[in-house]
Amino acid sequence: MKSFFTVKKPEEVFKILDSFTPCGAEVVPIEDSLGRILSRDIISREDLPGFCRSSMDGYAVKAENTFGASESLPAMLELSGEVLMGKAPEIKVTEGKAVKISTGGMLPEGANGVVMVEYCHQLDEKTIEVSRAIAPLENVIQPGDDVSKGSTVLKKGHKLRPQDLGVIAGLACSEVSVYSKPGVAIISTGDEIVPINGITGLGKVRDINRYTLGALCSTFGAEPVFAGICPDDYNALKEMIDSVIDKADTVWISGGSSVGTRDLTLKVLESLCDFELLVHGISISPGKPTIIGRTGNKPIIGLPGHVASAMVVAQVYLKRLLSRLSGHRNFSGDNRGLIEASISQNIESASGREDYIRVKLIEGEEGLIAAPVFGKSGLISTLVDADGLVRIDMNTEGVYQGQKVEVMLFTS
Amino acid sequence: MKSFFTVKKPEEVFKILDSFTPCGAEVVPIEDSLGRILSRDIISREDLPGFCRSSMDGYAVKAENTFGASESLPAMLELSGEVLMGKAPEIKVTEGKAVKISTGGMLPEGANGVVMVEYCHQLDEKTIEVSRAIAPLENVIQPGDDVSKGSTVLKKGHKLRPQDLGVIAGLACSEVSVYSKPGVAIISTGDEIVPINGITGLGKVRDINRYTLGALCSTFGAEPVFAGICPDDYNALKEMIDSVIDKADTVWISGGSSVGTRDLTLKVLESLCDFELLVHGISISPGKPTIIGRTGNKPIIGLPGHVASAMVVAQVYLKRLLSRLSGHRNFSGDNRGLIEASISQNIESASGREDYIRVKLIEGEEGLIAAPVFGKSGLISTLVDADGLVRIDMNTEGVYQGQKVEVMLFTS
Repeated sequence: MKSFFTVKKPEEVFKILDSFTPCGAEVVPIEDSLGRILSRDIISREDLPGFCRSSMDGYAVKAENTFGASESLPAMLELSGEVLMGKAPEIKVTEGKAVKISTGGMLPEGANGVVMVEYCHQLDEKTIEVSRAIAPLENVIQPGDDVSKGSTVLKKGHKLRPQDLGVIAGLACSEVSVYSKPGVAIISTGDEIVPINGITGLGKVRDINRYTLGALCSTFGAEPVFAGICPDDYNALKEMIDSVIDKADTVWISGGSSVGTRDLTLKVLESLCDFELLVHGISISPGKPTIIGRTGNKPIIGLPGHVASAMVVAQVYLKRLLSRLSGHRNFSGDNRGLIEASISQNIESASGREDYIRVKLIEGEEGLIAAPVFGKSGLISTLVDADGLVRIDMNTEGVYQGQKVEVMLFTS
Repeated sequence: MKSFFTVKKPEEVFKILDSFTPCGAEVVPIEDSLGRILSRDIISREDLPGFCRSSMDGYAVKAENTFGASESLPAMLELSGEVLMGKAPEIKVTEGKAVKISTGGMLPEGANGVVMVEYCHQLDEKTIEVSRAIAPLENVIQPGDDVSKGSTVLKKGHKLRPQDLGVIAGLACSEVSVYSKPGVAIISTGDEIVPINGITGLGKVRDINRYTLGALCSTFGAEPVFAGICPDDYNALKEMIDSVIDKADTVWISGGSSVGTRDLTLKVLESLCDFELLVHGISISPGKPTIIGRTGNKPIIGLPGHVASAMVVAQVYLKRLLSRLSGHRNFSGDNRGLIEASISQNIESASGREDYIRVKLIEGEEGLIAAPVFGKSGLISTLVDADGLVRIDMNTEGVYQGQKVEVMLFTS
């Protein structure tokens, strides 16, 4: 297929990324399911709790036996036993009787409410004084009050949090169906790139993108697999892509910086069976020379070699891509990760292009201040100094000192 | 040691938790260091980059040879070769000469700047026209511009993010010194508690706290180890604590709900060698009956049995505790995780007590709305329906509908 340069607007790119679908599903033990995405709804097969429980320490009674009780005119009830935790009580509550019960204990037959221990006074072995009336079902958790049988507890596409594991445990599911973690093959290209423990000499630089991109994959719930460092050579790159493409769910090639490398990556990609070029350039800075293509449902990404450019593209676009591949529903909910700050100085921005500014957050007297971290996009230190990114819309010409901005925090 | 009931205010509890220190340190490969906390400063042993690099595609020149150049009066330079990526150039730039160079290429001897390719026009094999003057060092990254030798790149106590792994890789460190992950022994107590795959009958409930607390430990960077389910029995609990206390960095016992269980836990704790009771009750709701003690630098925690109470205490206090045990510096920076919303209705709150309200976030027309999720603190579904917690200060009597509140998001 012949390619033509198709620089896309950010929102067009999001639409394209949203067309990808989850890579697969698997069943994992509940202990390993934290942070995973449900591939099926969780539907309760039972009521939780399965029996009436007391929600307080006190006395199980017939509510009607407390009607009219007050401090000045307490009701007298006969204490006829105690509910033991973890057992079905054998004792029954009959007219005028009370049974001692702890929080979580099972309500004995005949009782329809619990008087809190604070409103009871034990006069002798057999008698309690109740100084307050209760309504029927007061301080009682009924079967299904927590979760009712047949209800959808958690929906497909939900990312599992600690409390979600709790409810799943409460419903006796020891295994959970989740989407597979997308496997990301990472290739670093460039004649100048050497492994971090390799021999560096003049002209060589160590492979940084492998680590930043791999770690980003992990924070986004994917599994990075490092394929290798590839020189700027058509055959070598083709061979490396061929060797990983069947094993990975997506392939990310971070480009060398030499003139023509981008063309080289594209030329190799176009030689792949069924390759379709979707994006050749995005109107953002940094990160413009990004390539997005597909072979079937498998996204193939060409990233700029500059570490800051690659990371901005990953943070803004590839996180979204991985959320699609991992089946995460309601990804827009992730905007909750944005926090507000005032920008510390004027920043100009070319209109027609979305700018991502690296910022450091500083506690100010009237809230957080976002101070831009300037520096060339090849410098890793600019990212290390920054806490997050501020997006400057393509339809504005910049932001003014003191203006409120939303900061997309970097995660760890 | 004889205990007395010492209900503490929230800020007193924070102060007590802050007295704990990291449990240990270890060296891990850089690939496994994401999210870990540095136990030593990272100090650069070299300049990054180690040589002058071009930050643009263009031509390496002597800047003075471009002075006065303009579109109408371009400077003519002789093209004398090309810098190959990954190699130290053998060619030199002499008076009136230019050498082709790619982004990231090493600057040849004699050159002191790079003219962007956009401002150059190659007339023939040997001649280029330069239509713009450059200043010395323009488009050049000098040795140490990214990181200079001897500088502190990252500080002890810093939590490692993807870009931090990048700079560490760039500096050729393949291993990193980090604090050990705190090992948390988790014990669920209660005669009514059964394992999730155990036999449940009337009166029994499945162990939920094990999963919620264990998963919270994981999200807070600790390693949960489940010690077991323990009946409400002095000897059984003492035996179980004894069996784990030497292996764990902290022990968390979530209480059964029966009357007197809390006393039982405390009685067992007080039998431990060197046990010191620090907190017996916190003025918060839910979560008041929390116990915090220590044997040496090892915190021993007694948590309420109710799942929501246990989780609120873990989210608010035990996260802070684990940050101390894992050496995380600037934990207050974590407040950046708070997001603003308007509360959907009036909520009363007793003064003299800090209330934590479970809330669900809803996208409103004028920003996020926090809607309270009401329900007894024993119901796990209230946590599943909620997105986070809103703290109501102990010195107020509640919040009013529409009031701005800060929501502490639940994490996964």
